Amino acid sequence: MNIVDIINKKRVKEELTKEELEMAFNGYLKGFVKDYQMSALLMAICINGMSEREIFDLVDIFIKSGDVLDLSSIPGVKVDKHSTGGIGDKITLIIGPIVAACGVIVPKMSGRGLGYTGGTIDKLESIHGFNVSLTEEEFINSLKTVGLAITGQTANLCPMDKAIYALRDVTGTTSSIPLIASSIMSKKIAGGADKILIDIKCGNGALMETREDAEALREIMEKIGEYYHKETICEISDMNTPLGSNIGNSLEVIEAMDVLQGKKGDLTDLAIKIATEMIKVSKDITIEEAKKEVIDAINSKKAFNKFIEFVKNQGGDINSLEISRNIEKIKATKEGEVKSINALNIGKLSCSLGAGRLNKEDKIDYSVGVVLNKLVGDKVNIGDTLFTLYKKPNERNLLNIDYTNYYEIK
Amino acid sequence: MNIVDIINKKRVKEELTKEELEMAFNGYLKGFVKDYQMSALLMAICINGMSEREIFDLVDIFIKSGDVLDLSSIPGVKVDKHSTGGIGDKITLIIGPIVAACGVIVPKMSGRGLGYTGGTIDKLESIHGFNVSLTEEEFINSLKTVGLAITGQTANLCPMDKAIYALRDVTGTTSSIPLIASSIMSKKIAGGADKILIDIKCGNGALMETREDAEALREIMEKIGEYYHKETICEISDMNTPLGSNIGNSLEVIEAMDVLQGKKGDLTDLAIKIATEMIKVSKDITIEEAKKEVIDAINSKKAFNKFIEFVKNQGGDINSLEISRNIEKIKATKEGEVKSINALNIGKLSCSLGAGRLNKEDKIDYSVGVVLNKLVGDKVNIGDTLFTLYKKPNERNLLNIDYTNYYEIK
Repeated sequence: MNIVDIINKKRVKEELTKEELEMAFNGYLKGFVKDYQMSALLMAICINGMSEREIFDLVDIFIKSGDVLDLSSIPGVKVDKHSTGGIGDKITLIIGPIVAACGVIVPKMSGRGLGYTGGTIDKLESIHGFNVSLTEEEFINSLKTVGLAITGQTANLCPMDKAIYALRDVTGTTSSIPLIASSIMSKKIAGGADKILIDIKCGNGALMETREDAEALREIMEKIGEYYHKETICEISDMNTPLGSNIGNSLEVIEAMDVLQGKKGDLTDLAIKIATEMIKVSKDITIEEAKKEVIDAINSKKAFNKFIEFVKNQGGDINSLEISRNIEKIKATKEGEVKSINALNIGKLSCSLGAGRLNKEDKIDYSVGVVLNKLVGDKVNIGDTLFTLYKKPNERNLLNIDYTNYYEIK
Repeated sequence: MNIVDIINKKRVKEELTKEELEMAFNGYLKGFVKDYQMSALLMAICINGMSEREIFDLVDIFIKSGDVLDLSSIPGVKVDKHSTGGIGDKITLIIGPIVAACGVIVPKMSGRGLGYTGGTIDKLESIHGFNVSLTEEEFINSLKTVGLAITGQTANLCPMDKAIYALRDVTGTTSSIPLIASSIMSKKIAGGADKILIDIKCGNGALMETREDAEALREIMEKIGEYYHKETICEISDMNTPLGSNIGNSLEVIEAMDVLQGKKGDLTDLAIKIATEMIKVSKDITIEEAKKEVIDAINSKKAFNKFIEFVKNQGGDINSLEISRNIEKIKATKEGEVKSINALNIGKLSCSLGAGRLNKEDKIDYSVGVVLNKLVGDKVNIGDTLFTLYKKPNERNLLNIDYTNYYEIK
């Protein structure tokens, strides 16, 4: 059995043994299996799927590629939260401080951008000085002192997932339930939390486009959680419309701060819902009691102050956020009401402005993105600005975007 | 549309437009599309297939990636021959000289090793000095003087196919009818011959494992030939058993010369059959007349002398062929008759000895391979040598191969 045999076996939809999976994935990490071979195998997995046994084995291989974090020295229940990623999804930046402000520990490992959806780590890197590569010691100390720490995968935690994640991002192999489940759950399990909350995004701007796929992902992730004795709760939330109004790295950090300072809307509602679930499962209290704690944390500014404390603790300078001043306003040419905003197209637009990466080597411009000036349900008059492009500083041309690809107005 | 969108589109089995195919394939040749992206796309094509329209477009893109050879200055009918590749298939080295000795022009572009089956070019490179990279001028002059020339794809002919072929070889994406058909037919059409004979190998040691696949390949190749006004005749021949007795580069050249000097067997029979078809279609004579010419060319040694002339014309020193002296004999441990020899496993064995490549970067050792000492139908006594391994000169260990994976004796 060599790597070409293994790829061929999956190409014809046969089940791979654990040894074959190890040979392929461990071989990739060691460099014996090349990028172009792994991407062919990943595509075969995407199309032909994996059995439950293969998925459990893959999670095991991912976990064993690095260390498993031991958080037992930190008192109390540790809750991790993950989103499968959506356009404008900055929920982590909001619920982390809220939950920590309520006294529950939030140890969070995050990823970089996957396809058109930004990653939390990319967003945090828009804050000058922010350290997204904490050592295990720094991570644990931050959890003890601040109660919240967000780090990219350290070199020692699931290094294989990091490598595979970057490759999937640029090879059209993101939309695979077995690969998504293995990637998320291996990180969550290696991350050492006691309980795991997964926000599965569903809709045209999400990895899971249909409710059916979202349910399938929920099922396999809960099974993986059970297999590893980590209580895993999956929420499925809508992603046909971008979440909130800002898309792009710095822009999303700013919007997260706005919510923590009291801004209302769908984004705030979802953040409160998820934070409430996390408090409820951690403190073993009623949903009403949990929600009250969450609302109080926002209204008292404790959550916002926790955000500031968190950023400072990881070396970030919150005043350093840069938004491009090279803007272009896209205006309505008819009047009516905003019926829908296409999340996928807005995501692609933001990505094309430089907020996401199409090739592994691409550099993100943190200052670019899209701001939605009109949201679903808003009334629109001719000449009103629907959305604003924040373009690269050196982009001189007007892009003259046709709004009908993004906004449905009736 | 960017490359990730294009890959995703094929992943979900949608038809790609010509523009999308151009963006992907031309982009790959220019370096904008990476190895790992192309291999993911190729795998998606392997599993999800291509429409006839996509295949015609891909052939067009392959052809237009380079020049089209103009052979009109050479008088007479030009016949090209291609084999889809089998274990021990050195037919080209035999029929080329035979057909040329009969006065028909054979302009032949060949490829390198694809999977476990060797390529004619690799075999010819085992002859010291042999030039497999003729310029267009050298190729045409050779055809005018010798009547036979075999060259790898020159830099100007289907450079895209060359790049894609090398990538498919190491990414488990060889077994795709649309890709095989596009690769073969684009080269044949760009090669400028008037008529094309394709030997489609079918069996466990061939790219086409089933008769059904072989028929499907025949159908699409004949359609491509029709689309480009090049008469294309496909033969389907068995490849469950290795062809002849030698597998490995130098070893196969030696066996081809043996056949040209009168050695009998299945290999000789198939070579005569194919050469006869080529003479028949070119000279517009009966099959009996054509066969007589072929037999005469062998018996008179005209074909063998043509082979020597051909090798010399392309700079090769036929006395330079090197066979490893580090041999290991695999002996029978029971008596009986050879019922079958597993072509695929023999191919893999030869490849693992160093006769083929698993990674694009791998170097072939021309001196290694396998010689079958007993063929199907032969009687075997305990202790008889079934086959002989020709190992790398520096390989010191006995491999202690279990013959039952290769030979069925009853």
